[in-house]
Amino acid sequence: MGRFSSTRALFAEWLGTALLLATVIGSGIMAERLAGGNVAIALMANTIATGAILVVLITMLAPVSGAHLNPAVSLAFALRREITWPRCGAYVILQVLGGIAGMLAAHLMFEEPLWQLSQKIRTGGAQWFSEGIATFGLVLTILATLRARPAAVPMAVGLYITAAYWFTASTSFANPAVTVARSLTDTFSGILPGHAPMFIAAQFAGSLVAVAVCAWLFTGDDPGRTE
Amino acid sequence: MGRFSSTRALFAEWLGTALLLATVIGSGIMAERLAGGNVAIALMANTIATGAILVVLITMLAPVSGAHLNPAVSLAFALRREITWPRCGAYVILQVLGGIAGMLAAHLMFEEPLWQLSQKIRTGGAQWFSEGIATFGLVLTILATLRARPAAVPMAVGLYITAAYWFTASTSFANPAVTVARSLTDTFSGILPGHAPMFIAAQFAGSLVAVAVCAWLFTGDDPGRTE
Amino acid sequence: MGRFSSTRALFAEWLGTALLLATVIGSGIMAERLAGGNVAIALMANTIATGAILVVLITMLAPVSGAHLNPAVSLAFALRREITWPRCGAYVILQVLGGIAGMLAAHLMFEEPLWQLSQKIRTGGAQWFSEGIATFGLVLTILATLRARPAAVPMAVGLYITAAYWFTASTSFANPAVTVARSLTDTFSGILPGHAPMFIAAQFAGSLVAVAVCAWLFTGDDPGRTE
Amino acid sequence: MGRFSSTRALFAEWLGTALLLATVIGSGIMAERLAGGNVAIALMANTIATGAILVVLITMLAPVSGAHLNPAVSLAFALRREITWPRCGAYVILQVLGGIAGMLAAHLMFEEPLWQLSQKIRTGGAQWFSEGIATFGLVLTILATLRARPAAVPMAVGLYITAAYWFTASTSFANPAVTVARSLTDTFSGILPGHAPMFIAAQFAGSLVAVAVCAWLFTGDDPGRTE
Repeated sequence: MGRFSSTRALFAEWLGTALLLATVIGSGIMAERLAGGNVAIALMANTIATGAILVVLITMLAPVSGAHLNPAVSLAFALRREITWPRCGAYVILQVLGGIAGMLAAHLMFEEPLWQLSQKIRTGGAQWFSEGIATFGLVLTILATLRARPAAVPMAVGLYITAAYWFTASTSFANPAVTVARSLTDTFSGILPGHAPMFIAAQFAGSLVAVAVCAWLFTGDDPGRTE
Repeated sequence: MGRFSSTRALFAEWLGTALLLATVIGSGIMAERLAGGNVAIALMANTIATGAILVVLITMLAPVSGAHLNPAVSLAFALRREITWPRCGAYVILQVLGGIAGMLAAHLMFEEPLWQLSQKIRTGGAQWFSEGIATFGLVLTILATLRARPAAVPMAVGLYITAAYWFTASTSFANPAVTVARSLTDTFSGILPGHAPMFIAAQFAGSLVAVAVCAWLFTGDDPGRTE
Repeated sequence: MGRFSSTRALFAEWLGTALLLATVIGSGIMAERLAGGNVAIALMANTIATGAILVVLITMLAPVSGAHLNPAVSLAFALRREITWPRCGAYVILQVLGGIAGMLAAHLMFEEPLWQLSQKIRTGGAQWFSEGIATFGLVLTILATLRARPAAVPMAVGLYITAAYWFTASTSFANPAVTVARSLTDTFSGILPGHAPMFIAAQFAGSLVAVAVCAWLFTGDDPGRTE
Repeated sequence: MGRFSSTRALFAEWLGTALLLATVIGSGIMAERLAGGNVAIALMANTIATGAILVVLITMLAPVSGAHLNPAVSLAFALRREITWPRCGAYVILQVLGGIAGMLAAHLMFEEPLWQLSQKIRTGGAQWFSEGIATFGLVLTILATLRARPAAVPMAVGLYITAAYWFTASTSFANPAVTVARSLTDTFSGILPGHAPMFIAAQFAGSLVAVAVCAWLFTGDDPGRTE
């Protein structure tokens, strides 16, 4: 399967997505419990934890698997033929399983019932448009930064998600594996399971648009990389 | 048009400024809605989102267009003859159009009326002086960091704006395209349209002073770049 | 004792752990005093201070001693035979003494009684599981980032702890020397001394698991380092 | 005067310290006005702005003057014979003048009376001990990071001060020029002028200790720089 050792790469996608979801869901629970009803403070804690762990996970796992941790990102690399479709499929499965493992770990740490279904309503055109924009921006960030300055990708993704938690009305899930796992927690970061499919569709659509834009934006005679 | 492929550079200025304004305005709306009247918390969320996205946008778009995303910055580079005046003019147009597109995207995501006029009063000598200082500092940051350590420019700009949101009385618009777009939103980050022209004049003035100071400060025999 | 000059390395472990604990305990006191009962804001200030100082301490002390500042980290390096067991033992002693010195400095700065015993209850399976996860993630972060991009280790550790303060139910002590020192302060960051041993056991267990996982994950033919 | 062009270096010390004080004092005013009495939130905004601007100022001015921006730092470099005593004296004068200029700029931006005397009581052994620790840590950070990884100095200083605002009882002035300027503002960040001399004495003492510790810690056969 090419550049990455296969079993280890799959494990890295599983572990990384598990740690990502443990952070997203766990910090959401902690933040809501401590914030005394101030949702802005809760979301800020949730934002800082998520942005920080993304930098860490991508830095340390990129050499093992590419550190996609996100089916919408794996789709983008498959469309660009940078990974094969079988690898893309395997990554997606492990990402979803990892997300669920991370959700379970968060519930264990915070003494929540292990299996839950979220009641949080997140639906409507504005939410879907938000997810499309959020994922477009995320995939653009990855593809453009990989080209401009590969060593900056972990920081760029962490900072992008930090911003996107606040500039999108949906708080930027931007990740189908995250969306599945968050449908299974009835805590701060949850999403009603019935509302997940449209989020996921919007995310894949945003990824497609970003791939198309980058295919045009980064072709041609301009030299690219600055350092 | 020299170092940058033209159409792609113009598109990059448009897209980057659009994402910048979607972040500035969108995160302002989100923050105000969640903060329950605590303006300090709302401004902190607005600050963190804006600082973060600037690092991302400049990192990824600098090789395409220079990632000015700001007419006051394009003016500075034109005065320094690092871009031609026609390019400067084209950039400014695309930056303003991009800012408006970003404003519309934020309004769509947050289910606000698409077209609005801000009612927020931001006028008077202290505000104009603030914008002059803010833009002087921004252009100084860019020119001095480009010389001292070019790879640090994205981080320097993001951190500078993070500070300037708080140390200037105007929360540091420091960008004429941002000012135009923010005059068209009656949300947290707005500015009454009639008050925009003096902000823009102060911004261009700050940029001029920074170009003059840097022309003197960075001439001569000292070696510059440290790494 | 190999790569590091011995006396200076021991002093560096003492000094670094002292500054770490002065920060953890001192910023906890400051944050609680100022936050007016809002625990989320207090923990956020505590988080930001701790994450920031970790980046600084590891950056500046890594060439002197490796900047472990943590018995669970020294254990990991001893298990990997990157330091000798006598060095590991000496480091642990100096880390514990440093932590106590930092606790005393914090109490002096904030006019607290020098010697205290914490009354804060932190016990139960969920807390111990949290500490295991927290330390597993910390040691994984260090070992994986050392391999992927050694220069990024200080930032990775700082950001990991920033996230872990929020995503674990125990606020991620993840460090036996920190745990000992925090049992001796009856302020924001304290832990009842009787509850410290299980925290420490969970931390060493998490470190062991991380060493085992990394031994498998980072063997074989994949090339590792990306830059 | 050696490595740095003299007039430009002096101007850089003046300008950098002015921007530093405009940020410290200006963000304190903004934060207090917006925070509605929540001092923790006000101090956090003040912290983030100060930490951010320090990274920017040191990055961009280091090649021009060394970017000391702090008499306690210039003293340290003079003691280490890295700058001459006349240069040290000239730097200190310009730093103090720059700090006053920054204070005036902040007052202008926020429509405060230009000249004020602070009423804020900051005195007593715990405060002085805090300032000693704070400046010891700052000078240690600079000297140790210069040796370990020079390119990381701006980030290390910014992050150190971010932590020190919270872990010291005095909020870490750690800078005699800052102390003078802050005695001249009766706003959030002020200090009663009569209390400034002991702060300054403690700061110079902390600097001396740091120079002595580093002279021992960084001599000998260990290789230092890691990259």
